Amino acid sequence: MTTEQLYNQIQEKKSFLCVGLDVDLNKIPKHLLALEDPIFEFNKAIIDATHDLCVAYKPNIAFFEAYGMKGWLALQKTINYINDNYPNIFTIADAKRGDIGNTSSMYAKAFFEDLNFDSVTVAPYMGKDSVEPFLAFENKHTIMLALTSNEGAFDFQTLLVDGKELYKQVLETSKSWKNSENLMYVVGATKAEYFTEVRKIVPDSFLLVPGVGAQGGSLAEVCKYGMNDKVGLLINSSRGIIYASTGTDYAEKAREEALKMQQEMSGIVSLKFKV
Amino acid sequence: MTTEQLYNQIQEKKSFLCVGLDVDLNKIPKHLLALEDPIFEFNKAIIDATHDLCVAYKPNIAFFEAYGMKGWLALQKTINYINDNYPNIFTIADAKRGDIGNTSSMYAKAFFEDLNFDSVTVAPYMGKDSVEPFLAFENKHTIMLALTSNEGAFDFQTLLVDGKELYKQVLETSKSWKNSENLMYVVGATKAEYFTEVRKIVPDSFLLVPGVGAQGGSLAEVCKYGMNDKVGLLINSSRGIIYASTGTDYAEKAREEALKMQQEMSGIVSLKFKV
Repeated sequence: MTTEQLYNQIQEKKSFLCVGLDVDLNKIPKHLLALEDPIFEFNKAIIDATHDLCVAYKPNIAFFEAYGMKGWLALQKTINYINDNYPNIFTIADAKRGDIGNTSSMYAKAFFEDLNFDSVTVAPYMGKDSVEPFLAFENKHTIMLALTSNEGAFDFQTLLVDGKELYKQVLETSKSWKNSENLMYVVGATKAEYFTEVRKIVPDSFLLVPGVGAQGGSLAEVCKYGMNDKVGLLINSSRGIIYASTGTDYAEKAREEALKMQQEMSGIVSLKFKV
Repeated sequence: MTTEQLYNQIQEKKSFLCVGLDVDLNKIPKHLLALEDPIFEFNKAIIDATHDLCVAYKPNIAFFEAYGMKGWLALQKTINYINDNYPNIFTIADAKRGDIGNTSSMYAKAFFEDLNFDSVTVAPYMGKDSVEPFLAFENKHTIMLALTSNEGAFDFQTLLVDGKELYKQVLETSKSWKNSENLMYVVGATKAEYFTEVRKIVPDSFLLVPGVGAQGGSLAEVCKYGMNDKVGLLINSSRGIIYASTGTDYAEKAREEALKMQQEMSGIVSLKFKV
């Protein structure tokens, strides 16, 4: 999927919501546990209930790997289900991978080719040759960690390197990498004031924003500082939507929560773009 | 496995060799491709041929994920084969994972519980709460990237933060984390002179050292600067051993290469520890 297609989706749906599929068997409705593949069944119902309100789904790969082979199968079925039924949805493998060149190529192959995701998240610590193998794939997107939404973000990401925070150095350096137009960045919503700084460095890039809702970030604040003239944001919500209810009405309740976010986004998109 | 048990292995075998299992179907002997599970069959033969010469195996998870379900099954069979047949061998899931707290717990569960590895590699960029969930597992080890062996290591890892390189900041900060005694570190062999600096900060920790051989690092140099009084090194070789031959004699040739390294190590251990 091209960024232009993603932007078209955002305009059509008046939404820049990404639903995070972080499926923990301890948190899903108990009645699903009797089914052969509870993770996939849970995802399928959530996807069917929310696909018209969001523009992206982001399975966090950890939650699948934790269940071994069964988890991997559920991941495969989930991505196939989205691609088969809702091909306009942008898909993000939240994997936070990164390794030396030839190994990163294998990860890229796993997520872009074998599983056919539109994008994958990567970590920057190993530098250019750990990320460029991902960037080589046409119409695929590499979402690099810049400033994350957790407490530990302040351990290294905000340390001053030549008078400039490390995450800014990461953003700037990455702009010189080959096929850097395929880069997007993770910037956490819990630090809305930082978006102004981020936008000075990467005005045109899409930003994937975790931390709205459960982690305390404000949608309005993030939009105020982080939007560009093509929206340029994908706001992720995981737990706030998928665990809105632990009863048999979980999909319906998930839709209600997604709808609330979409409506707020709709207001923002309308105001900003006069559509 | 405890670090004491790992050290005992090193003394017994006079080896601190780690064999990296980075199995690329394009590089293994062609006759294996006709088998039902070529990746596992390749690994099994390599393991049987080298287990008495090395103290650790390190499957790089990317090379399994790239083959989807089949790859994951091959990984599971490989780790089970090692644990069942050679339980004294230290096992490393080279996964370079890291995510926010509850997600890191899922990764830890995947590698420490579901697959039963002794250790897993992690990336430091997201800080304390992305690594501590791994450290909480007793007698399991978390091997954090400090200074890697690739070119991109110089993009961020060696930048000066308050007059000190980022990798040193990473090493120092991590020492204050809960259960930090379960930490080991990745330090690349291509930068042998850096080991002196690393040892000033983490004198007692085990270091996993990639980059000897194929990537150009020298074993003697690394030992000179990086050994502590309990050896404290695990030297990884992947391609140099497992792809020593692409013929039917691949396991035999892998043994020959592993033996060369073990013999060199034996000399070093003997000299240093007068055993």
